[in-house]
Amino acid sequence: MSAPNFPGEFLSLQRDGASALHLQLADALRDLILSGRLRTGQRLPSIRSMAETQGISRNTVVAAFDQLSAEGYLESRPGAGIWVARLVPTGWPDRTMAVPAAGSFLSRRGALMAAQPRIRSIQGHPTFHPGTPETSTFPFKAWARLLKKHTSPHGSELLTYHNLNGLQALRESICAYVSASRGVRVTADRIVVTTGGQAALDLLARLLIDNGDKVLIEEPGYHGARSVFAAAGADVHPLPVTEAGWDLDAVTQKPVRVVYVTPSSQFPLGIAMTLQERLALIDHARAHGTWIIEDDYDSEYSFHARRLPALQGLIEDAPVIYLGTFSKTLFPALRIGYVILPENLSEQVKRAISFTGHYAPLFIQAALSDFMGEGHFLRHLNRMRRLYTQRRRYFLSLCQEHFGKVLKPLDYQSGIQITCVAADDFDDCAMAERARVHNLNPAPLSSYYHAGAARRGLVMGYAAVDEADMGSAFAALKAIL
Amino acid sequence: MSAPNFPGEFLSLQRDGASALHLQLADALRDLILSGRLRTGQRLPSIRSMAETQGISRNTVVAAFDQLSAEGYLESRPGAGIWVARLVPTGWPDRTMAVPAAGSFLSRRGALMAAQPRIRSIQGHPTFHPGTPETSTFPFKAWARLLKKHTSPHGSELLTYHNLNGLQALRESICAYVSASRGVRVTADRIVVTTGGQAALDLLARLLIDNGDKVLIEEPGYHGARSVFAAAGADVHPLPVTEAGWDLDAVTQKPVRVVYVTPSSQFPLGIAMTLQERLALIDHARAHGTWIIEDDYDSEYSFHARRLPALQGLIEDAPVIYLGTFSKTLFPALRIGYVILPENLSEQVKRAISFTGHYAPLFIQAALSDFMGEGHFLRHLNRMRRLYTQRRRYFLSLCQEHFGKVLKPLDYQSGIQITCVAADDFDDCAMAERARVHNLNPAPLSSYYHAGAARRGLVMGYAAVDEADMGSAFAALKAIL
Repeated sequence: MSAPNFPGEFLSLQRDGASALHLQLADALRDLILSGRLRTGQRLPSIRSMAETQGISRNTVVAAFDQLSAEGYLESRPGAGIWVARLVPTGWPDRTMAVPAAGSFLSRRGALMAAQPRIRSIQGHPTFHPGTPETSTFPFKAWARLLKKHTSPHGSELLTYHNLNGLQALRESICAYVSASRGVRVTADRIVVTTGGQAALDLLARLLIDNGDKVLIEEPGYHGARSVFAAAGADVHPLPVTEAGWDLDAVTQKPVRVVYVTPSSQFPLGIAMTLQERLALIDHARAHGTWIIEDDYDSEYSFHARRLPALQGLIEDAPVIYLGTFSKTLFPALRIGYVILPENLSEQVKRAISFTGHYAPLFIQAALSDFMGEGHFLRHLNRMRRLYTQRRRYFLSLCQEHFGKVLKPLDYQSGIQITCVAADDFDDCAMAERARVHNLNPAPLSSYYHAGAARRGLVMGYAAVDEADMGSAFAALKAIL
Repeated sequence: MSAPNFPGEFLSLQRDGASALHLQLADALRDLILSGRLRTGQRLPSIRSMAETQGISRNTVVAAFDQLSAEGYLESRPGAGIWVARLVPTGWPDRTMAVPAAGSFLSRRGALMAAQPRIRSIQGHPTFHPGTPETSTFPFKAWARLLKKHTSPHGSELLTYHNLNGLQALRESICAYVSASRGVRVTADRIVVTTGGQAALDLLARLLIDNGDKVLIEEPGYHGARSVFAAAGADVHPLPVTEAGWDLDAVTQKPVRVVYVTPSSQFPLGIAMTLQERLALIDHARAHGTWIIEDDYDSEYSFHARRLPALQGLIEDAPVIYLGTFSKTLFPALRIGYVILPENLSEQVKRAISFTGHYAPLFIQAALSDFMGEGHFLRHLNRMRRLYTQRRRYFLSLCQEHFGKVLKPLDYQSGIQITCVAADDFDDCAMAERARVHNLNPAPLSSYYHAGAARRGLVMGYAAVDEADMGSAFAALKAIL
């Protein structure tokens, strides 16, 4: 029994064993049906005839027909043969038509998100990349032991849908740490654990910003914050910062919804906000219903004899939302941060995070809580402070030796990067471009400005560079200069 | 030398050793300044006099004064004494005023997000909670070994800012798996790894939806999808589903931006979409510029002899975005999912995810990639399929024995939960409420309906319940009935 016009003689089955023959046959027949070359109601050859034509066993044909019948492509009745099922609609001339360009398929909000600069993944280990801590000194043994401890059937509360706003034990560890070390006013129930500081910023922008709301971002400032607020539709304005401080006049002009600041170690200049500035900022914010977002991203690396506490702790009930992260103190790919909320905002954030799904794996949270509880965290921090103190000193001496008066380091004794300022005609982008060839990745200072005149210079992460590499890196930079 | 009107005699320092005396003194003085009881320019007592009045050592006083000077509260000049620094503004009568209610501080979008039902964390291990896989059988040893392997100085590429849209090795593992197992058309560069399926949905809603855009969500359907789209401002409409299938007429009425479907194992009914329905859905979507989001959340647990491939793989260039997750196959708290994008959407999603910060820890991604590469994943999956086949069979026999005709299980041989349907006058919410007292957590079927008439019944997760527990749980439910 043969079926007229069956195009099956063109089927090409590969006998190299890479894929089972019955699956190849099913795929080929499915393609014929979907492309319209086998039509609704069309009869297929019998199993025997198909097996003979293709030179395969009958079992192979039966298996392929069974699969396609299960998927709905074929129908059969004993004695009546096998035919292509009635698929609606019967003809589909457009079926191979390409989808329209995605641009038109994005929402306006989506287009705004897609218009933000893509933050590129780091490739390899470029020297001087800002914001990069030393990771080789991390206490891997203790960490692996704790991960293992919390990856067991006994910890099965850590495997399902518990603690969406952060493991209680970790929130308590963070609470104890930020109270003691950063002077933050907090209870564990006002902490929400996030998948990093950036994720926390993203969530806050969504909760606090409508299209057109005015937001102030430090200038120069952290471009990740700028992207998040711009993507949320904010009307982003600069909050100018120089070595002389924050220009708070910007806060007093027309209502501002959110001010984003890094008061303990300004990124990228490294200066700290004075008490006067802090009080004035809080006063302005209170008077105008403005939220202050305090990003305390690397305040742990303040090398002053007396560290300034966080802005958040200054005054009870100030409209300050505090962001912390373990990216700089432990390692960036840990993806754990936290947000400390005023009491009247905490329920809303917990609710939002419960359905956005942006919570960190619980076994990591449990391991991190133990890591803090067992003292590894503070020990590591102190080790890193000593190490960075040395590297910072060496870095500054190399600046003096190689950069002379061309690039002047701003040393405010804080942070894991140092900004070197140049004259206004210095082409920092070209310099950074040339450095990249040598696997050096200082960031041009001008890239942290968006609104107007940009200062020139290089923002250089020194923390992950050991002294031997630092010497040769500086020599290479000098050659470029 | 004593200072007139210094209110310091009221300072109360605790000598229980819980907190260093100089910090207590600094805290107390700071409070006096911030509350306005010590005013700008006011002189403080001398170090000696302060030490005597408080009964503490001079060094303690010096340390406290140093700290407050560093913070900017005090100023001093040798010989001229110490006074409160000039803080701007000079008076702050409102400083203890509470912040306005947060409601008024949220954006409209934020209010919309906060208006969604909060997804509650599970407490303990309630029996029959839908969507919960068995976790005690997870290969913890292999997993711990792989985590340890990727938590070492040698893996330091896994510690910083690499691979923001997913570790290459994991994307390749996922690519191989979904191609072979789910018939998905994909290359590794069109996969973006997310912090779970829910996080992927959240990102897609933001990219694809503007306020008022029409979105269809299956009814009954997954409330997490509903929350995400409603929070994005969508005009959410039901896509009715019954045992007879999907009512696709809803797709053809006025332009729909996004259709959210679970075609391989509908949540919570468990039915699979027929080929005819799949083709019709794709045709409608193409004709009207609609995105189809295919959530393949637990298709791995199809117990048919011949599993249906994913909708996504059906036709080249169909406007389908595919979501996968490891929450059901491994464990929910792993927080790893993935989205497979049409080529013309993949750059936009990568760009958006780069600044939202929602990427999973790299060492977990590396461990998971090895877990798949070494065969643990498929072995675990097969073990679970056998286990769930038994548990499913036992569950169905207990249904018959205890539920009789009151609750009729819909057995479509898929998924890790089974929905039992009751008559329209059955109060499934009251039943679920009473069951909770016994630590049983079946979900009322009516809770998965939002638009109109809801069917009644119980959605019961059977996968994480061993046979002994299942027997007693059914006995308890019968008693409640």
